[in-house]
Amino acid sequence: MKTQVAIIGAGPSGLLLGQLLQRQGIDNVILERRSGEYVLSRIRAGVLEQGMVDLLREAGVDERMDKEGLPHDGFALAFDNRRVRVDLKGLTGGKSVMIYGQTEVTRDLMKAREAAGGKTVYEADNVQPHDLETKSPYVTFEKDGETVSLACDYVAGCDGFHGISRQSIPADRLKTFERVYPFGWLGILCDTPPVSDELIYGRHERGFSLCSMRSQTRSRYYIQVPSDEKVEDWSDERFWEELKRRLPDDVAANLVTGPSIEKSVAPLRSFVAEPMQYGRLFLVGDAAHIVPPTGAKGLNLAASDVNTLYRLMVKVYHEGRTDLIPRYSQTCLKRIWKAERFSWWMTSILHKFSDEEDFSTRMQQAELDYYTSSEAGLKVIAENYVGLPYESLE
Amino acid sequence: MKTQVAIIGAGPSGLLLGQLLQRQGIDNVILERRSGEYVLSRIRAGVLEQGMVDLLREAGVDERMDKEGLPHDGFALAFDNRRVRVDLKGLTGGKSVMIYGQTEVTRDLMKAREAAGGKTVYEADNVQPHDLETKSPYVTFEKDGETVSLACDYVAGCDGFHGISRQSIPADRLKTFERVYPFGWLGILCDTPPVSDELIYGRHERGFSLCSMRSQTRSRYYIQVPSDEKVEDWSDERFWEELKRRLPDDVAANLVTGPSIEKSVAPLRSFVAEPMQYGRLFLVGDAAHIVPPTGAKGLNLAASDVNTLYRLMVKVYHEGRTDLIPRYSQTCLKRIWKAERFSWWMTSILHKFSDEEDFSTRMQQAELDYYTSSEAGLKVIAENYVGLPYESLE
Repeated sequence: MKTQVAIIGAGPSGLLLGQLLQRQGIDNVILERRSGEYVLSRIRAGVLEQGMVDLLREAGVDERMDKEGLPHDGFALAFDNRRVRVDLKGLTGGKSVMIYGQTEVTRDLMKAREAAGGKTVYEADNVQPHDLETKSPYVTFEKDGETVSLACDYVAGCDGFHGISRQSIPADRLKTFERVYPFGWLGILCDTPPVSDELIYGRHERGFSLCSMRSQTRSRYYIQVPSDEKVEDWSDERFWEELKRRLPDDVAANLVTGPSIEKSVAPLRSFVAEPMQYGRLFLVGDAAHIVPPTGAKGLNLAASDVNTLYRLMVKVYHEGRTDLIPRYSQTCLKRIWKAERFSWWMTSILHKFSDEEDFSTRMQQAELDYYTSSEAGLKVIAENYVGLPYESLE
Repeated sequence: MKTQVAIIGAGPSGLLLGQLLQRQGIDNVILERRSGEYVLSRIRAGVLEQGMVDLLREAGVDERMDKEGLPHDGFALAFDNRRVRVDLKGLTGGKSVMIYGQTEVTRDLMKAREAAGGKTVYEADNVQPHDLETKSPYVTFEKDGETVSLACDYVAGCDGFHGISRQSIPADRLKTFERVYPFGWLGILCDTPPVSDELIYGRHERGFSLCSMRSQTRSRYYIQVPSDEKVEDWSDERFWEELKRRLPDDVAANLVTGPSIEKSVAPLRSFVAEPMQYGRLFLVGDAAHIVPPTGAKGLNLAASDVNTLYRLMVKVYHEGRTDLIPRYSQTCLKRIWKAERFSWWMTSILHKFSDEEDFSTRMQQAELDYYTSSEAGLKVIAENYVGLPYESLE
C-alpha cells in the first residue's frame, strides 16, 4: 500500500485533515485502531470556534451543521448567586461559537469521506510508524491477521494523548509540560431541554458547575468532583441535587431534570509536548497537547493544528515548499500556548482548590469581579473564547 | 487634648488625610512615633495614579508636583530581549501616571500642614488608641516624658503594616489573607540620568528587573534577589553587571551607571486584613493591606483609602450621615482586592519562581505573549496601571 499522507487516527482531526487534503488532490489513508461505531460512541465536546466552523465549511461538511447546530452569541459566568453575560458577538465585532456535538462532526466527516472515496482502515491493530527520519517513512499495521505496510511521504499523528504517534518520538527529543488538577468533572447527558439558551459556567463555594447542551432537547451538565470520585456513587438524584445547590437560584428553579443517558468522570489536565514534529511525523491535536475542558478548547485546538498541517501540505505538494516544514511546530505552538493559558485561567478562576478561604480564593474572586466589570476584561474573555486568530506559516 | 479625628501616623496617607480634612474645617491631630526628618528619609515609591494626583490637587499640594513631577504616558514590558510599550494614554482614553517621589509628596504635605496650622506631634512614644467601640474613643501617647491623652470622635490608623492601629483590633475580629513571595527586590538609587524616559519592567530567565526614576537626574533600579540576600554582598559593580544581563541589549547599551546613594533589599508580600473598621477606628493604607511593589500600587491604594475616609468624614460632619460609617470597609476593599489582584498578577508574570522551565514558566510566557499582542489585553494592563476608578460610598 502507498499514499502521500498516512493519517493515524480517525477521530475528528484525522477525518478533517483527510477530507481537506482529499479536496486538494492530496492522497491519504487513515488508520484507526477502533471501529467506526466505537469512534462515534465517544461523547466529547460540543462548542466549535468560528475558525473550526470555517474549516468544516472548507471541507464541505457544513450542511447538517448549519441546519442542526446552534449558533451561540454569548455565555454566562455565574458566581455570588448572579450571572454576568459575556456578549461574544458584541465584544468581538461579530464572532460567535457553534454548538454542535463532536459526535455529529465526526459522523458528517465520515459520510463525506465515504462519498469522496477516501480510504479509512478501521480496526487496524498494532499501528506503528517507521523510518520517520528518512525520506521514505512507512506505517505498518495488522488487519484481519495480516501485517500490512503503508508507504507514505508524511505521517500525521492524530491518534490522541495515548496514541502511538507521540510515543514514536525518542524521549530525549521531546520536552513535556504538564499540570494535573486535583479534581475532575462528573458529566451527565440527558434528553431534557437545556436550562438556558446559552452555556453557564459557574463558580461556587461547593465547586465548579457547567450547564451545557448538545441540542435544544439534549442537555449536558457537569459538576466538579474529586478526581478519584466513582460514578457509581452518583445517582441521578444526587447529581441534580448537587448541581442545583451550585447554580444561581433563578437558574436552579428552571432546571428540568430527567434520567441520564450517559454519566462519567473526566480528569482535568494541561499538557504540551514540544516540538510537534519529528522527521516526517507531525503531531496533531491531543497527540501533542491536552487542555482542561473549561472553555472548550480541546477539539478547537486540534482543528487549528489541522489547519496548519493542511495548509503546509498544500504548500509542499502544490508549490514544492518543503522549506516550510520546520515551521509547523512553532506555528502550532504559538496558538496552543495561548489556548493553554486561557483554559488554565478559566479552570483556575472557576474551580474550588481549597476548603480554606485564603489568599488564592480571594484572587479568584477578584479576577471574576475585575474581568466581568471591565469592558477590556470582558473582551479578553470573549476573544479567547471565540478563538484567537489562526497563525500563519509564513 | 481634644480633636475630631485623631490620625495615627504622619506618612503620606496620614498627612494627606489631615490636609483634606483641614480644608473642610474638620479638626484633626496627627501623632507620629518618629521625627519628621526620619519620615522624610524613607525612600519609597514614586509612581502616582491619576486619582492620587487629583486628590493631591484637592489638598492644594500640586504646585511643586506640577513643576517637578514627570507625567508618564506609558511604560514598557521587556522580555525575550525586546520591549513592548504599554501606551497608557492611548489605551485608557487619556489617563496617565505621574513620577514624583513619595518623599517629595510627604515634604509638600508637611509644608502645607504647617502653613495651614495643622497640629502634628512628632516623636510621640507609645501611641495607644482606647475605647474604640464607644462613642468617646481617645488616644494616649508619651511626649517628653509625659503621658498625654487625646480625646476624639474617630481614629484614623495610618501607621503602616507594623503600626499599633491594626494591633488594637481584637484578633478574632480580623480575618487576614497573606502571600509571601520567595524573593525580594534589591534596589539602588543613584544620581544618573534614567536609561529610558519611561519605566521598564523586565522578565528574564535570571529574574525580574525594573528601570525606574525619581527625576530626570535621579534613577532607581531594582533586580529580583533571594529574600535572604544581604546588601553587603552586592557592590555597585555587581549590581550594574547583573542588571545589564537582565535588560534587552539595546537598553543595557544605554545604561549610565554611577555610585549608589542608597541600596536596600525589600521583601515582597501580599496582605489584606478584613474588615478595615473596628468601632470608631478606620484602617488606612498599609495598616490594612500590603501589595508587592510590582505595578506601584502601595501608595496609590493608601490614597484611595484616604479618599474614601475623607469623603466619609465630610458626609458625617457636614451632613450627619453616620449611617455611611459601616460602608467604609467594603467600599475600600472592593478596590483593594482588584489592586491586590493586579499587583499579584504583575508579580506572577514577571518574576522567576523556579529554576526549572516548567508549565508555570510557560504560563508566564503565554500571559506576556497574549496580553502584549492583544489590544484588549493591553487595555487590561493599562487601565489597572493608571488605577481603576475610585469606589463611591453610596
